[in-house]
Amino acid sequence: MSEKRKLSKFAKDIRNCQRKAVGKAITLIESTRDDDRVLAEQLISELLPHTGHSKRLGITGAPGVGKSTFIETFGLALIDKGHRVAVLAIDPSSPNTGGSILGDKTRMEYLSKKHEAFIRPSPTSGRLGGIAARTREAMFILEAAGFDIVIIETVGVGQSEIAVSNLTDVFILLIAPAAGDDLQGIKRGIIELSDLIIINKADGELLPIANKTESDYDSALQVLRNKDRLGTPKIAKCSALMNTGIMEIGKIIDTFYESAEQTGVLQKRRASQDSKWMWEEIHELLTFKLKSDKKLSAVIKKLESRVESGKTSSTSAARTILESMLK
Amino acid sequence: MSEKRKLSKFAKDIRNCQRKAVGKAITLIESTRDDDRVLAEQLISELLPHTGHSKRLGITGAPGVGKSTFIETFGLALIDKGHRVAVLAIDPSSPNTGGSILGDKTRMEYLSKKHEAFIRPSPTSGRLGGIAARTREAMFILEAAGFDIVIIETVGVGQSEIAVSNLTDVFILLIAPAAGDDLQGIKRGIIELSDLIIINKADGELLPIANKTESDYDSALQVLRNKDRLGTPKIAKCSALMNTGIMEIGKIIDTFYESAEQTGVLQKRRASQDSKWMWEEIHELLTFKLKSDKKLSAVIKKLESRVESGKTSSTSAARTILESMLK
Repeated sequence: MSEKRKLSKFAKDIRNCQRKAVGKAITLIESTRDDDRVLAEQLISELLPHTGHSKRLGITGAPGVGKSTFIETFGLALIDKGHRVAVLAIDPSSPNTGGSILGDKTRMEYLSKKHEAFIRPSPTSGRLGGIAARTREAMFILEAAGFDIVIIETVGVGQSEIAVSNLTDVFILLIAPAAGDDLQGIKRGIIELSDLIIINKADGELLPIANKTESDYDSALQVLRNKDRLGTPKIAKCSALMNTGIMEIGKIIDTFYESAEQTGVLQKRRASQDSKWMWEEIHELLTFKLKSDKKLSAVIKKLESRVESGKTSSTSAARTILESMLK
Repeated sequence: MSEKRKLSKFAKDIRNCQRKAVGKAITLIESTRDDDRVLAEQLISELLPHTGHSKRLGITGAPGVGKSTFIETFGLALIDKGHRVAVLAIDPSSPNTGGSILGDKTRMEYLSKKHEAFIRPSPTSGRLGGIAARTREAMFILEAAGFDIVIIETVGVGQSEIAVSNLTDVFILLIAPAAGDDLQGIKRGIIELSDLIIINKADGELLPIANKTESDYDSALQVLRNKDRLGTPKIAKCSALMNTGIMEIGKIIDTFYESAEQTGVLQKRRASQDSKWMWEEIHELLTFKLKSDKKLSAVIKKLESRVESGKTSSTSAARTILESMLK
């Protein structure tokens, strides 16, 4: 079989949602090998016309707020309504801490067994831009495979939250009920990124605190502007454990999409994301080219050591490196 | 006077800490004009041998924790001990919200009147990488002017916190006393960036809560690793308003430096930062070159619109753009 026919068979298997092909495709895009990158690029180009039809949801929240439980309960509810749900996770902190948000095998036990679900951690090597760019390609593959809800999960580090908000249509911040000085703890930047803030664990003893948290946020959100996003962030509460409030959250998200599609905000937002990623990839590619060229990498090494010893400024070293590349 | 002599006079005025020259230099490096950039680069090269001798402190914290009050009280205490203190602030959220962390004129009222202090917001235009790279040059100017403590302040958005941690030796997270679910609110990534966590407002009614917060964090920090940094993050409490605990914080920071200098960690950290900034500047410069070349910017515009309409993948567009540049 010719290379071209092989690729087109591969793409077809993905579009028919053959799980083995989907898994293989994601492994392919995660590869840093040169020939794999070429193939991955061809595959994405082939699949591109069949992407973009899913709802892209980003979810963040501090450890302990119940992200896994929420995604599981929410994902199962979506499947019940006839959707097919893919979950990708970005955890840039894992190389540092040795942990991974998807390391725990018991995570999303029920959801992971569903035929209509696909759960996968994202690549953890490389610069965050690279990780997120690959996650974006994984999202395209899952969209081409017919998943109509893609959830991209992240944790903690601000840079990854910005990346996930640039990958998704609706960015959700999950928090736990907190009394008193609660707004204090949530960083302003995260609220500005969020389209929807969900107070999880709104059950039992925590319910009154959750109600208080909701009204606190409600007044705070009145003041906050969110020009770039789909509107003022919404606030909702649920108990993923007790399965309450989940349908309401589904409805809020549906309303987001209805209004964002009508007003053209969704299309505009995705277009702006596409352009951001193009620039991101230009920079990734440049770094790769600079590091893989023998002559240039010798120049870089020399200048880098001059910069590190304070003999040359990083600015003039950067200029010299770029000029060596261009001449 | 020749250009070269003018520059060397300018550098001399800065090194003599003539405030007008220092201010003018920072304005110069903030300029995006081509000729100004050339001059700025020359100036930084001239000053580079006279930089690096300050303690570089980064400070972050959510709105309301008392960052201004802390920096003022701490800065005044440092001046009392014979130091000269410069404060730079990065607030990337300000273009979005219209606000600025240094917009409030009453901020650091006493500190700003001191001859031994220099307070300045950082440039707010451009990509964060660019803003932070310019802030780094401003720091060099202030170091050359003899400020031996440089405090770089930021707020909220995670990306800017990572940038500030890459600009400084000691990264400080300021929090307010919080009862109960307190660890919840602070994002894990920020704790991993921090060398020192300070509980401010440890006075009056809040003192017992501050003590509880301290012991909560203390146990939490036992578990957290912080390999890249100067060691396990330390925890301290103070009241910037009542001026208590401030000297102890100064001592903790002194101990940081003593141990980091002895072990070589400080030198290693700065070298690694220098190399990061070199790469950052390579990317900045590339973007600038691509956008300012007429022929290339036409290619980019065309491809960008194909990417935005889903006709070309961002990856293959990026490849085409970089190849057009290199041929």
